[in-house]
Amino acid sequence: MEYDFHQWLTSRSDFVARWAEIEVGIGDDAAVIAGSNESIVVSTDSIAEGTHFELGSASLSQIGRKALAVSLSDLAAMAARPVGVLLAFNLPREFTLGNAQELYRGVYDLASQFGIAIVGGDTNRWQGPLILTTTVFGRRPARMPGWRKNGAQVGDAIVVSGYFGGSLESHHLDFVPRVDLALYVAEHYQVNCATDVSDSLSLDLSAICQQSGVGACIDLTLVPLSQAVKNLDPVTALEKAISDGEDFELILTMPQAEANRLLLDVSIDVPLTRIGVVTDAHQGLMAVPLDGTPLPIVPKGYIH
Amino acid sequence: MEYDFHQWLTSRSDFVARWAEIEVGIGDDAAVIAGSNESIVVSTDSIAEGTHFELGSASLSQIGRKALAVSLSDLAAMAARPVGVLLAFNLPREFTLGNAQELYRGVYDLASQFGIAIVGGDTNRWQGPLILTTTVFGRRPARMPGWRKNGAQVGDAIVVSGYFGGSLESHHLDFVPRVDLALYVAEHYQVNCATDVSDSLSLDLSAICQQSGVGACIDLTLVPLSQAVKNLDPVTALEKAISDGEDFELILTMPQAEANRLLLDVSIDVPLTRIGVVTDAHQGLMAVPLDGTPLPIVPKGYIH
Repeated sequence: MEYDFHQWLTSRSDFVARWAEIEVGIGDDAAVIAGSNESIVVSTDSIAEGTHFELGSASLSQIGRKALAVSLSDLAAMAARPVGVLLAFNLPREFTLGNAQELYRGVYDLASQFGIAIVGGDTNRWQGPLILTTTVFGRRPARMPGWRKNGAQVGDAIVVSGYFGGSLESHHLDFVPRVDLALYVAEHYQVNCATDVSDSLSLDLSAICQQSGVGACIDLTLVPLSQAVKNLDPVTALEKAISDGEDFELILTMPQAEANRLLLDVSIDVPLTRIGVVTDAHQGLMAVPLDGTPLPIVPKGYIH
Repeated sequence: MEYDFHQWLTSRSDFVARWAEIEVGIGDDAAVIAGSNESIVVSTDSIAEGTHFELGSASLSQIGRKALAVSLSDLAAMAARPVGVLLAFNLPREFTLGNAQELYRGVYDLASQFGIAIVGGDTNRWQGPLILTTTVFGRRPARMPGWRKNGAQVGDAIVVSGYFGGSLESHHLDFVPRVDLALYVAEHYQVNCATDVSDSLSLDLSAICQQSGVGACIDLTLVPLSQAVKNLDPVTALEKAISDGEDFELILTMPQAEANRLLLDVSIDVPLTRIGVVTDAHQGLMAVPLDGTPLPIVPKGYIH
């Protein structure tokens, strides 16, 4: 239903108000409001008990941290420098002041790490489970070409950061949003298209294909596997790597020559891997499996 | 608890990250991010089933409308021109695509009315009740002095818009956020202090007193009563007018001479009333009751 709703929203451009000062609206990782010297980039995300975390298996400060981290990942996908965050905390009735403070500490520690101000918010107790909504905003110099989901070009290299699979069993509470990487790459390389992996590698790559009007072919032997799935049998591991949500790594597409330079850049300490190439739209999303001939991928993963 | 948490946040300036570009942070109706020509003003609000609305007594489009209206009221309190809104919809599992569309239509209709773009959001279904979080952002020319909660001066007139009391029984679903009024008044008059009435007239006036380090004395005979309370006995009506939440009217404090001009301004079509005067801090929040001698008011209302 969420997917249908999103399709409905993006298909009805007459219904979604559009204005000259809105450079990027619904459909990308964040919205961009144009300015003369720089653009403002904003994004909002909710994380909900039972969907994105369980109170039993995560501490409140980990949950607060995650609420900010998922939003920062969206700014990274737009190559925007984060400036501030607004917090909407909706707390179960039985929550104490100490509980709220612990949530806040998780947000604050990550905010400090990234030099972001917590500028305001709204705190309520209510009849429902815990749900946190963060809205981050950042800046991007107007001279810098924005990273978008719809810019992939046929022939582009597909490059990903980090490792994939098993996030919910391992890194969804402590992943580092790829903000520093994104700012550095945006400064030094031509990137045609970017997004972050929240739903899954296959779903988010498929969104790039849809929005850019292209296809993609990835070599499954090249998909970097996270520690959490490495010990599984190879097929299950790969299945999880391309279908699990919440890896919060970046997918970039860029000219092959730029990718060649990037993959040799010694000042980057985040692992980067070229996993495939952007193809014609009519080829769809394909994968070269472990044993040879390309096969279509059915994008799977977590659909919000 | 929400009040204690908010006090804790605002008291710990070392803990709340502050940065040069943040002109106004936690504690006001919205945050302000400084810019060279203009500032960006942002605010976030959640409305929750069981607290701010009941599914039985409000349509989904009314609920969507309210989610945006409460946020716009915060921008009005800062005299910022609204530009865009981000929506975080967290929907009960049984919600259909049609339900989501109806919520959206409520937001969209009000957004169109105010010329605001819906620029993005996050939609999830989850195990909890319906909760909507809206983050609005607006612009304010840098040359225009910002409206703040902490600027009230002793001797200022206290002026309010509209009528008070009984919002939950009457106007909380269809009130018009005072954006146009605020922009007009900010352009033409000196306003020392402003806020919107979300918690209650007495609580929000008390917040002004606290943040500005002043007291206030209001004449209860002058408090404008809404239709919803006018037929009640006078004491109950007044009690509700100063204690009920969600009126979303403006409280302004300004020099008496400015108030004199303002109250005679024929181009304003929103009722405005001078209800009292800003006094020394040691006098606290007082009221002249129906029969004479000023008495202290115990601020009451809805504390989020």
